[in-house]
Amino acid sequence: MIHLDVAFLPSELAAKSLHSALAVVIDVVRATTTITTALAQGCAFVLPVLHIEEAFELQRQYAQEPHRPLLGGERGGQRVEGFDLGNSPREYTSEVVKNKGIIFSTTNGTRTLLALKEAAPILIGSFLNISAICQYILRHPFQDQRNPVILACSGVVNTFSLEDAVCAGMFVHFLSVAEPDISKTPAAMAAELLYTHYQADLLAMLQNSDGGRRVARIGLAQDLVACVEVDKYPIVPIFHAGKIVLREESLLVESP
Amino acid sequence: MIHLDVAFLPSELAAKSLHSALAVVIDVVRATTTITTALAQGCAFVLPVLHIEEAFELQRQYAQEPHRPLLGGERGGQRVEGFDLGNSPREYTSEVVKNKGIIFSTTNGTRTLLALKEAAPILIGSFLNISAICQYILRHPFQDQRNPVILACSGVVNTFSLEDAVCAGMFVHFLSVAEPDISKTPAAMAAELLYTHYQADLLAMLQNSDGGRRVARIGLAQDLVACVEVDKYPIVPIFHAGKIVLREESLLVESP
Repeated sequence: MIHLDVAFLPSELAAKSLHSALAVVIDVVRATTTITTALAQGCAFVLPVLHIEEAFELQRQYAQEPHRPLLGGERGGQRVEGFDLGNSPREYTSEVVKNKGIIFSTTNGTRTLLALKEAAPILIGSFLNISAICQYILRHPFQDQRNPVILACSGVVNTFSLEDAVCAGMFVHFLSVAEPDISKTPAAMAAELLYTHYQADLLAMLQNSDGGRRVARIGLAQDLVACVEVDKYPIVPIFHAGKIVLREESLLVESP
Repeated sequence: MIHLDVAFLPSELAAKSLHSALAVVIDVVRATTTITTALAQGCAFVLPVLHIEEAFELQRQYAQEPHRPLLGGERGGQRVEGFDLGNSPREYTSEVVKNKGIIFSTTNGTRTLLALKEAAPILIGSFLNISAICQYILRHPFQDQRNPVILACSGVVNTFSLEDAVCAGMFVHFLSVAEPDISKTPAAMAAELLYTHYQADLLAMLQNSDGGRRVARIGLAQDLVACVEVDKYPIVPIFHAGKIVLREESLLVESP
């Protein structure tokens, strides 16, 4: 049986039992959307780091290798000085990222990812790969209630993020439709309600959210269209041993 | 114009600008329900404290006065050893509390109250006094966006609480109906959606929530009925200078 829970904020994760949890990190605007896009476009791996100095330091450690990783990410929505890429999914094209590693630093999404480190597996979720992740969850061998699915919203600077809650609710809804034998916490039910209300126009929801308005204000309104392309990529990115890779590669690493 | 915001968790308050905010603390199960009941039943004041030792210490400071305050509150839902009262609104009858002060300690609600200390005024809200507080808000002289109304949910041990979110949503809904010139954050809109979904049966919502189940498990299911008596008491409790009193008394203290 699948037990579904939602954390609306990373600060909730400390109070939850993550030890045997399957976790999905959600940061619609824009970290998990961008990471999903990068991996779909052929990027070899994404290394998330919290601080900008760590990103530069890590890049120096790769200096001897033939393929030096790119630096990507943002502060205040904008590309960091000295970085190769910002946090706009539209920048992460196959021409730019194919077969390259990316050292990636954003604030909200990265913090959520690191707060989840006890969970396993940790998946990267967004509107772009929602069905692929649901299929992964439905095939996952769950044991009992101590083995829940936690949909972890990143929020915006420690406050509630509507778009992350709606995306979490879409996961809850898709899983509920596919699997009747499912239990949902009140938070999961609340997220599903938000999704069913906003599902008819996800782009409008995003444009009116705090996160969406912030991105539009810095001239990146087109990014919002890229953030709501439901099921554009049938991929499952997994965070394992500090690195985000596609599921296949990750499964080779951690053979059962 | 009224600007309405909702914090689903106390941890969000640090990221919000509280300086000129009017705040309403909500902890449906059961702190703000119990405090509202106590004041409606004639209790002179409620002194909220975070730690049990503080409660005993404060009571000793009042030892010389003719009316020694009662000790009320809970840990793990149950009355604290040595306290006169627990956290059940049904205990706070006129016979017990009239003209007496109460030193009150709970975890979630008290923490929210103390996290709001920069805001003014700080009101104590619950389903029991929702219309009275809405009327107070509608008559309040707001200046601009830097002067928002923050509905602060207490949550349960730092996680999302459905009943607090629904109660916050009821405030949002009542205020929206009464005052068309209102702006709402996405969080306020989300809370309102939850309220409109659950409004037909608030008791069932509460019985299925984490907080409600916890109270039922310790044999206090009857408390839940007392927590959803909408508009039972037309009173506005205000937290000012460390003390919760009814509005009238508070206005005498802080004459404009």
